[in-house]
Amino acid sequence: MVAASSPLESVPSTMRALVMHEGASGIDALRVEDRRAVPRPGMGEVLVKVAATPVNPSDLMFLKGSYGFTKALPVVPGFEGSGRVVASGGGFASQALMGLRVAFSSALDGDGTWADYARVPVQHCIPLLPWVGDDEGATAIVNPLTAHALVQLARKQGHEAIVQTAAASALGRMLVRLCKREGIPLVNLVRREEQAQALRALGASYVICTSENDWRDALRAATRETKASVAFEAVAGQLTGEVAACMPVGATIVVYGGLSESPCALDPRELIFRGVHVQGFWLADWFRTAGIPAVLEGGVVVQRRIRDEFATSVRDKVGFDRAIEAMRGYAASMSDGKILLCPSFLG
Amino acid sequence: MVAASSPLESVPSTMRALVMHEGASGIDALRVEDRRAVPRPGMGEVLVKVAATPVNPSDLMFLKGSYGFTKALPVVPGFEGSGRVVASGGGFASQALMGLRVAFSSALDGDGTWADYARVPVQHCIPLLPWVGDDEGATAIVNPLTAHALVQLARKQGHEAIVQTAAASALGRMLVRLCKREGIPLVNLVRREEQAQALRALGASYVICTSENDWRDALRAATRETKASVAFEAVAGQLTGEVAACMPVGATIVVYGGLSESPCALDPRELIFRGVHVQGFWLADWFRTAGIPAVLEGGVVVQRRIRDEFATSVRDKVGFDRAIEAMRGYAASMSDGKILLCPSFLG
Repeated sequence: MVAASSPLESVPSTMRALVMHEGASGIDALRVEDRRAVPRPGMGEVLVKVAATPVNPSDLMFLKGSYGFTKALPVVPGFEGSGRVVASGGGFASQALMGLRVAFSSALDGDGTWADYARVPVQHCIPLLPWVGDDEGATAIVNPLTAHALVQLARKQGHEAIVQTAAASALGRMLVRLCKREGIPLVNLVRREEQAQALRALGASYVICTSENDWRDALRAATRETKASVAFEAVAGQLTGEVAACMPVGATIVVYGGLSESPCALDPRELIFRGVHVQGFWLADWFRTAGIPAVLEGGVVVQRRIRDEFATSVRDKVGFDRAIEAMRGYAASMSDGKILLCPSFLG
Repeated sequence: MVAASSPLESVPSTMRALVMHEGASGIDALRVEDRRAVPRPGMGEVLVKVAATPVNPSDLMFLKGSYGFTKALPVVPGFEGSGRVVASGGGFASQALMGLRVAFSSALDGDGTWADYARVPVQHCIPLLPWVGDDEGATAIVNPLTAHALVQLARKQGHEAIVQTAAASALGRMLVRLCKREGIPLVNLVRREEQAQALRALGASYVICTSENDWRDALRAATRETKASVAFEAVAGQLTGEVAACMPVGATIVVYGGLSESPCALDPRELIFRGVHVQGFWLADWFRTAGIPAVLEGGVVVQRRIRDEFATSVRDKVGFDRAIEAMRGYAASMSDGKILLCPSFLG
């Protein structure tokens, strides 16, 4: 066992951070605090000095209390970021990361990433390649690694082609570009015709708009033609069952989001007589079960293409003082690009 | 390849049968026909001279058009029965069954069991032990083999204990007795207190009545205590998701019925953050995938205990002429025991 080592640089005992004080009040529950205690990494964990950390849709759900898991309050939100490892809590892997620039996702307990420093389990750290910038690294995990891990899951389960809902989302677009590069037929479901046009412009071959009356027939025809036997489903509600009914016998529905904020409705006959399986996907589980080599490999794959299929559009970079205001703007129109919180910024 | 052989006894070209003429009219759609063509078994199939064939809840759903799969009309309904193999359509296994008394379930296409003769795939045949009567054999498959196969599924997936809904049904009671004998802790959900008392009288240790306000807490406590990680769910609707929420992380929900006639409602967060899996179970799939040795073994297990945990209570035995009237009585109160249609009976 390797003991905790001295930090690489002087780490203060307190820091600036955005702190959430109530469970379900959204952005209103956030305060900037100047003297939040710097977390102490335990065995198998490191302390990262945060360079940049984004606001994702999942953060807004966490602030509203609708994300699906909760943390003891008050707490620092934020699920991913980039920065430099400045201290180790002990253990071989933690020591190996000392001094490296990393992309990381936060621990499942305790404070998250919207702070000067973050405590991070080593298996949630991906060393950044030299030419990947802090801003690019800050958004390398939640969407890109989910897209990568979903495609790996489809491959592992032996599916030849994929259906996805919410295909116009940032993650959906990554899947469009990733599947195109990998030669995996992908059938995309969107709600509106302008989203369909945007995906076709990205090179999507199969785009079906659920505002059309015959979308179910079109989906059935597309799954037959492509032999798609897995659906990545981020909407839930009625759509889960409607998609299931258009998939072939024995298909798998992988639910990774619930944008409709309604329960998945599934005709039991799809499960019984047509052998449809339903499972979830959560990136935190993938980190836990895939193993460090697979996580590191995923990190390399994502970084190699961080400027094409895994690119994230950023609209604004802010320090703590402007963060809450910028977040309100993001919440109002999420498709205009993300905002990055950069602790070293003034304003 | 072994060619079709001469029948053991003279098989007529037409027969008596109950025939369903419309898709969704229930018992009203049935007619007794005297000159229905006797089906011709193909390669890998046999012709069974039917001794007894029951009316199950699934038959009534099939008559109403709500069972989940349909057949071209007009068609002879009926999913299981007993009888003697009197002709082979060719193939080694078909030849081996010639002359044997069997329990059987009908082919997925074409005419079913409510007739003088039935065409049956060999893998749907279970040779009857000498001391098992035709009446006992007639109900040896749908409920007993489902109970057996569900418990095998739970074992194969490594579950230590089981939760079941609709525990007061005929199949639910079989599971109570089977799990008791096998020493598998079983947590039973029922709707009414008198059902709870009936199950306790059968020796059930954990019985939870969903009419009680605190049933969810009781279910959580029972799954914790027993380490139950799989639920056999026959109700669907809200209950699927409510049960899922009381199961541990990573639990499996096996849906094998939809008594509520509502879609399964599942919070996507159960799937994503708590790793709940949902799958269906259909005995016809088990016949197809388990393999003939496992089916034959299941048949022996069931027959050895056909008078205790796999016993079925029968209220009446009728010939074709009284069948429709008896079926109406059964539909009105299914818990008073099944009716058996015996083609050789007059009246």
